[in-house]
Amino acid sequence: MNKSLPDTFFKPGTVAVVGASKKANFSSGIPETLVKNGYRDRLYLVNPREREINGMPVHADLAAVPVPIDLAIVVVPAPQVPRVIRDCINLGSPSVVLESAGFGETGPEGALLEEEVRRLLKGSQTRVIGPNCLGVINPHASFTTTQVNLEALRPGNIGVIAQSGTFGNILADWAPTQDLFFSKLVTIGNRLDVDETDCLLYLADDDQTDVIVLYLEGVKDGGRFYEAARNVSRRKPILVYKGGRSQAGRKAAASHTGSLTGEDELYDAIFRQTGVIRAASFQELFDMARVFSREPLMAGPRVCVATVSGSFGVMTADVCTAWGLELPDLSPQTVCALRDIAPSWMNVKNPLDLGPSGIYDAAIKAALADPRIDGIIAVPVIPEIVMQKYTELGVDVGSMFGDPQEWRRLAPGKPILMFTVGGASWCDHVRKVYGADISLVSSPENAARALAASCRYGRFRAGG
Amino acid sequence: MNKSLPDTFFKPGTVAVVGASKKANFSSGIPETLVKNGYRDRLYLVNPREREINGMPVHADLAAVPVPIDLAIVVVPAPQVPRVIRDCINLGSPSVVLESAGFGETGPEGALLEEEVRRLLKGSQTRVIGPNCLGVINPHASFTTTQVNLEALRPGNIGVIAQSGTFGNILADWAPTQDLFFSKLVTIGNRLDVDETDCLLYLADDDQTDVIVLYLEGVKDGGRFYEAARNVSRRKPILVYKGGRSQAGRKAAASHTGSLTGEDELYDAIFRQTGVIRAASFQELFDMARVFSREPLMAGPRVCVATVSGSFGVMTADVCTAWGLELPDLSPQTVCALRDIAPSWMNVKNPLDLGPSGIYDAAIKAALADPRIDGIIAVPVIPEIVMQKYTELGVDVGSMFGDPQEWRRLAPGKPILMFTVGGASWCDHVRKVYGADISLVSSPENAARALAASCRYGRFRAGG
Repeated sequence: MNKSLPDTFFKPGTVAVVGASKKANFSSGIPETLVKNGYRDRLYLVNPREREINGMPVHADLAAVPVPIDLAIVVVPAPQVPRVIRDCINLGSPSVVLESAGFGETGPEGALLEEEVRRLLKGSQTRVIGPNCLGVINPHASFTTTQVNLEALRPGNIGVIAQSGTFGNILADWAPTQDLFFSKLVTIGNRLDVDETDCLLYLADDDQTDVIVLYLEGVKDGGRFYEAARNVSRRKPILVYKGGRSQAGRKAAASHTGSLTGEDELYDAIFRQTGVIRAASFQELFDMARVFSREPLMAGPRVCVATVSGSFGVMTADVCTAWGLELPDLSPQTVCALRDIAPSWMNVKNPLDLGPSGIYDAAIKAALADPRIDGIIAVPVIPEIVMQKYTELGVDVGSMFGDPQEWRRLAPGKPILMFTVGGASWCDHVRKVYGADISLVSSPENAARALAASCRYGRFRAGG
Repeated sequence: MNKSLPDTFFKPGTVAVVGASKKANFSSGIPETLVKNGYRDRLYLVNPREREINGMPVHADLAAVPVPIDLAIVVVPAPQVPRVIRDCINLGSPSVVLESAGFGETGPEGALLEEEVRRLLKGSQTRVIGPNCLGVINPHASFTTTQVNLEALRPGNIGVIAQSGTFGNILADWAPTQDLFFSKLVTIGNRLDVDETDCLLYLADDDQTDVIVLYLEGVKDGGRFYEAARNVSRRKPILVYKGGRSQAGRKAAASHTGSLTGEDELYDAIFRQTGVIRAASFQELFDMARVFSREPLMAGPRVCVATVSGSFGVMTADVCTAWGLELPDLSPQTVCALRDIAPSWMNVKNPLDLGPSGIYDAAIKAALADPRIDGIIAVPVIPEIVMQKYTELGVDVGSMFGDPQEWRRLAPGKPILMFTVGGASWCDHVRKVYGADISLVSSPENAARALAASCRYGRFRAGG
């Protein structure tokens, strides 16, 4: 199983939907979605009980399709799956996304069926993703084997591998609302053939993927994953959330995707040795994905926290320290430069509690220029009522903290993270002005953890 | 300093703004806000350099005001503060909110000024909140000593004590966007007189406050706080976020509100012994506030997790276990009842992975009725595209998971928490349908931590 994953999973020249149906069910939107995304002329529908769906002809079986099929999306009931897979193999289809459920996740009978398909595949050139999954989303080719909204097809540079189909769909809905965009998203389900390591290796060579994110309930082949992760980590960061840490979680995973999750400590050791970055929560996983996909790696542990609220300054300093980062004193030059322009009440320290000083942009630039500082966490906040006043006076409140693109130009090697909280219109402003350029994270904790991970991963990459 | 905090801080019959000014600055909106909230006929402005502001007369000093003043809001520059405080004492004003900055937080000179005011107060009947704060918001009386939006004045049952003024204002902006509403919010700043313990004791006796939330950088008088917290905890839950855990955080706190933060382990011990619930993050503090202000205390550690996404089921099971909760098997009766109505592919287990079964409401009701279950975490999710289809078919997607008010009636003694993630319109739906009745929390982690805290606190209340 060490042959590489074929491109046809992500950029098929021809696609069949086997089990296409007029009935409204989980799969009925797939042909429609493919047509909407420009695949009409290379799409073939298969179902012995249908003649035509939405004006498209339906073929009785795969053999009746007039062209070779690159990718078969299979949604027939589980008992019919072996027959369809046999057709795919016989016709030389290189790739199958098997979305049907009713296999190992449901009990011994389903497991037997899964085993039967596995036997059929042996020695063939056909690769299968699934069963019990929703397959592939490739925004860079507007291609998807599951019905998603248009927003989920906006291309990004984060490659995601998840086990569960529903989870993948929810992710696809949620990510764009957080300004997170994917290069590829694969849900692998029960992994009767293709597993997380195959996908990892594929994404490692994918030019559109800069960061690889895995949601795993268990690794199928520990040794192979270890080897692959160790190699891939030297080139691209791998972020992992591993479910099934607890006994209750492991039992749940067994009936969810039939995964044996194994001992958590073992995973910790594997991840540590292979440079894989482990996240402790869903939100942290994607906060990290954002930071790793946008920010340069942090060269050292020295952070400057720049805030308007002393309380958030204290909180952020606390969590940075808890995760092994340092808040050094600013260099004498930076302190002098800031004292020159700061109001008398302002303490020029780290964290930089800027209060209503108005020197936000200058302060962040000074911190970025400071050789003692490796990265920045900015916590701009402002009461809505103050914002309304400024807006009435014609001040562009959104950008009063400075120009994020200029910050980038000044210090392309230093990560800049931002966290904010407040009223709805303030948060919208920040997202609009900074969301595209600066990594907005969901909490001071996750800012600190992402920077600490960036620092650690930088050392791993340097061979330390 | 053991005399109780006077009501005049929260429900003053007469109010003066000392230092009212036409100039636009942090305090210029205060008179306007008071007028807008119905305080015009009991509001008096004081400033020797103004004659009239927005049609209201301005008095030269407090002695010139024709009526006794219940509460003086003082916003004059720091050096003028001792004179104003002397006036308040001489005129017998019971309460002063001193918002001016420039005291202990700025250095030795400011500390001397603070000491001078403290000496003046000795033996007087006048109590002072501040300096370096924004005072009080009392939504139940539409009263505020700081300019806030109307939404922040919607009354709730969470009483908040914070140190920093900006933080308080940001909280007031943010909370309504999260369906969190306050009974009182006090920012105490440098605490030259009134401190967190005074406020704690006031809120303990306040009928509109069910839960007390503290953001602290340090406790002023450890022994007194200990005594008060131990007593108050027996009646109302006290939730704390303590900033300044790390050395960097402690340094920041010192220049922020002049607080000596002390050793973190000591605080942990104090909180544990007094039944105070400590939150590890800002978000957790308010997720807990939501749960404690709405849910019954959890009678035992047994949770049922009901989800539509197996992945979120696994995650939630993991974090519940990590925080000491249990996911027991459902009782045989519950299992039988659910098997009767569940589709064949559904595993009737805990976590209840309901998938697209459609039996959401029935499942939650069955879990609520189960004597083996003490509380519920529901994780409803649905792909946007499925939601759109249901909506087209006329299904009320928002409430397809069931009627939260009916759940409450069925099991008034069991907490019900909900977490969701997904597209924007789905999240809006959930908030609209469930936000008012069920505790929506921001993550599976915080759901688990809040329930674990509820359980622990229940034991403390029972004397265990």
